[in-house]
Amino acid sequence: MKLRTQNSDPRIPLTSILSPKGRGKGEGLFVPGFKAAGISCGIKKNGNKDLALIYSETAAVAAGVFTKNKVKAAPILLDMERIKKGLCQAVIINSGNANACTGKKGMEDAARMVAAVEDGLGIKKGFAMVSSTGVIGQRLPIDRIEKGIPKLVSSLSSKGWNDAVHAIMTTDAFPKAAFEKCRIGGKEITVLGIAKGAGMICPNLAPASFKQGMATMLAFIATDAAIEQKILQAMLKKAVDNSFNSITVDGDTSTNDTALILANGKAGNEKIGSRVKPAPAGSKQGGEGARIFQEMLERVCLKLAKMIVKDGEGATKLLEFDVSGAKTDKDANKVAETVANSPLVKTAFFGEDANWGRIMAAIGRSGADVKQERINIYFNDVPVVIKGQGARGKGQEIKAAKAVKEKEICIRIELGLGKGAKTVWASDLSYEYVTINAAYRS
Amino acid sequence: MKLRTQNSDPRIPLTSILSPKGRGKGEGLFVPGFKAAGISCGIKKNGNKDLALIYSETAAVAAGVFTKNKVKAAPILLDMERIKKGLCQAVIINSGNANACTGKKGMEDAARMVAAVEDGLGIKKGFAMVSSTGVIGQRLPIDRIEKGIPKLVSSLSSKGWNDAVHAIMTTDAFPKAAFEKCRIGGKEITVLGIAKGAGMICPNLAPASFKQGMATMLAFIATDAAIEQKILQAMLKKAVDNSFNSITVDGDTSTNDTALILANGKAGNEKIGSRVKPAPAGSKQGGEGARIFQEMLERVCLKLAKMIVKDGEGATKLLEFDVSGAKTDKDANKVAETVANSPLVKTAFFGEDANWGRIMAAIGRSGADVKQERINIYFNDVPVVIKGQGARGKGQEIKAAKAVKEKEICIRIELGLGKGAKTVWASDLSYEYVTINAAYRS
Repeated sequence: MKLRTQNSDPRIPLTSILSPKGRGKGEGLFVPGFKAAGISCGIKKNGNKDLALIYSETAAVAAGVFTKNKVKAAPILLDMERIKKGLCQAVIINSGNANACTGKKGMEDAARMVAAVEDGLGIKKGFAMVSSTGVIGQRLPIDRIEKGIPKLVSSLSSKGWNDAVHAIMTTDAFPKAAFEKCRIGGKEITVLGIAKGAGMICPNLAPASFKQGMATMLAFIATDAAIEQKILQAMLKKAVDNSFNSITVDGDTSTNDTALILANGKAGNEKIGSRVKPAPAGSKQGGEGARIFQEMLERVCLKLAKMIVKDGEGATKLLEFDVSGAKTDKDANKVAETVANSPLVKTAFFGEDANWGRIMAAIGRSGADVKQERINIYFNDVPVVIKGQGARGKGQEIKAAKAVKEKEICIRIELGLGKGAKTVWASDLSYEYVTINAAYRS
Repeated sequence: MKLRTQNSDPRIPLTSILSPKGRGKGEGLFVPGFKAAGISCGIKKNGNKDLALIYSETAAVAAGVFTKNKVKAAPILLDMERIKKGLCQAVIINSGNANACTGKKGMEDAARMVAAVEDGLGIKKGFAMVSSTGVIGQRLPIDRIEKGIPKLVSSLSSKGWNDAVHAIMTTDAFPKAAFEKCRIGGKEITVLGIAKGAGMICPNLAPASFKQGMATMLAFIATDAAIEQKILQAMLKKAVDNSFNSITVDGDTSTNDTALILANGKAGNEKIGSRVKPAPAGSKQGGEGARIFQEMLERVCLKLAKMIVKDGEGATKLLEFDVSGAKTDKDANKVAETVANSPLVKTAFFGEDANWGRIMAAIGRSGADVKQERINIYFNDVPVVIKGQGARGKGQEIKAAKAVKEKEICIRIELGLGKGAKTVWASDLSYEYVTINAAYRS
């Protein structure tokens, strides 16, 4: 069964996502057995933090999901090799330079970066991984990074997550962190995630909500759960599909996109594994533990993903596109992504215009199997299209006009053909940011 | 062999496309045996022309290409039936209302519209076709259209093309007409095309150059050539693929997109047919005539298509993306369309920023088979990427910075893998129009 906990989950009120106030301050961010740090080493010209480190006191079980872009940055190529052994003890991340399209020299720089951090930490060779985000096509200032590593290592602290999350930001408007706690088999388990992404790439005028406009997305998750590597990889893949891959188009990623998870087992729970034991009544062991952990991981990823949507400057609304009744899940994906990525649809919501014709047109060109006379569309439960035509009824237009004025709108699209379903999130398309920047340029 | 006459064809200087001055004034627009008209019948509230008619004195051989959108407007459904007989004598077009998502009533309205024009002209039943463009989801004001038809018919004139082209405009900034003349077997042949499309759909803030932001594209072509229906259909399809379908993404069309061609044979040329006779030396008959006609048709379509690109308000540049060396033509299409539709790439050109990293990232995510270390990119022959890395050399940055300041930029992308090629055209992405409209709304 496909987990769809992100779907109108009452535990994640959209309002909290839309109001970044107080979020990411770093209070309470803590995972047993992990330390983090973030410093400035001189990559960013403005002196902002640009080098982060995540460190596990013991080698952690690791899983990763990487960009499907065929133009892959050097750190991606290095990490894809290293993740194969399923163990990792440290992740170093720089912002301000993507180390992409940098050829052999870029690969050498990425290798020097992990070697330097392994030396600095005194951990096994091959146990560090690396991510980079920033401008494409320029050599990494590797000397500055190497010089910064002693300070980075000495700054490591169990409360260093706030520094780390700031050091991975590029043009993000706010830091993105989320955590969840729960009990599995009587043991408290923590899942903590930090992320960067979206915002506008300076001097990029494209709204973050365009798939092509998305900046590099990086997410790093730390947990003290004890878990088998294979199941962790499968769980991360599923969580990413239902979160980060549901705010953009599958495969439509930057050269550097990365999601990594490290699980150090410090919680001492019975290891979550592929061999599911029947759980004793009332306990939360075996398969039940796996289910809880998956849900928790998905919640953390979805919180971070929604923050990325929210981070599109000028975004005024959070739009949830909830497609059901497709012939297949694949068809549902096509419809959800086409509608959610349509500038016409997004600008209509910005303009608070209940322009359902644009949604119909987007559904029709999505490539999915659809029958226009079976399509129903609702805005926050207000019917706007019934059987392919404009909904009628007393006060219908007033209700629809009211629905599009909300800050959070669920656009429910029923295709009436099968059981395929998909939910994606997007911001609307306001031009405030663009207007500001157009003026700024001239 | 695929005809690729649009590719840096010296006969179509880009400058003439970028300067609409004097274009579409309607002087000289004339095709033997055809009449046209355009009037206001009250669909548009501002009193602008909204009803056009194209009429052939004799039933013409007809071919058509229609939207691949699965949500099809009523006129599309009607025309797709009627085109099967390959003959047509009149085309009626209204602007201001798309007659889309209007159900059975919409089909009835479309049927009434063609019946009324057949009656008014006194032509055979089934020999009229219809196109509509405008708002989706509202009933056509069919009574006003029916009342307007006598005036429309009495306005028909061999010099009425200028009125017709104005009557099919929605938010087009300028009328779009193009014609070509040539001799085939000693007979003068004319191909005349009118089109509407792009511009911003009011109150659509999305730039026309986005595939999703494209307004309905309508094109109507009249020729006095004598030609077999099957070959005309194949030629139109090819011409549309290399023009209208090369400024947007295949299949990513509105509910109403239509290209129709009527050929009435008045030129008296030896019929262009599928049975190609060996042409006597020096003559332009048989296969040679077909080749000439195809080229002429493609030139007319390409001129109109480039006008549509140019019509994106705020567009400051005409960008030609010329992809070669792909494994297959399909792969070349993927790369060309992904790069040309990337807001990141388009805004970089607006900002006159030689940001090739964005092009590399778009190539990588296009889904085409690529090897980053084989990719070369040139801006108007200035190398910017060689073997996947930033081009070096004396003055390289100055030359690249100069190239992106041009009004017309050819972005040549060599993939180095095979013989697949594709050229597409796009405008840059300026936010002038958006800025104006954002202010206008508030």
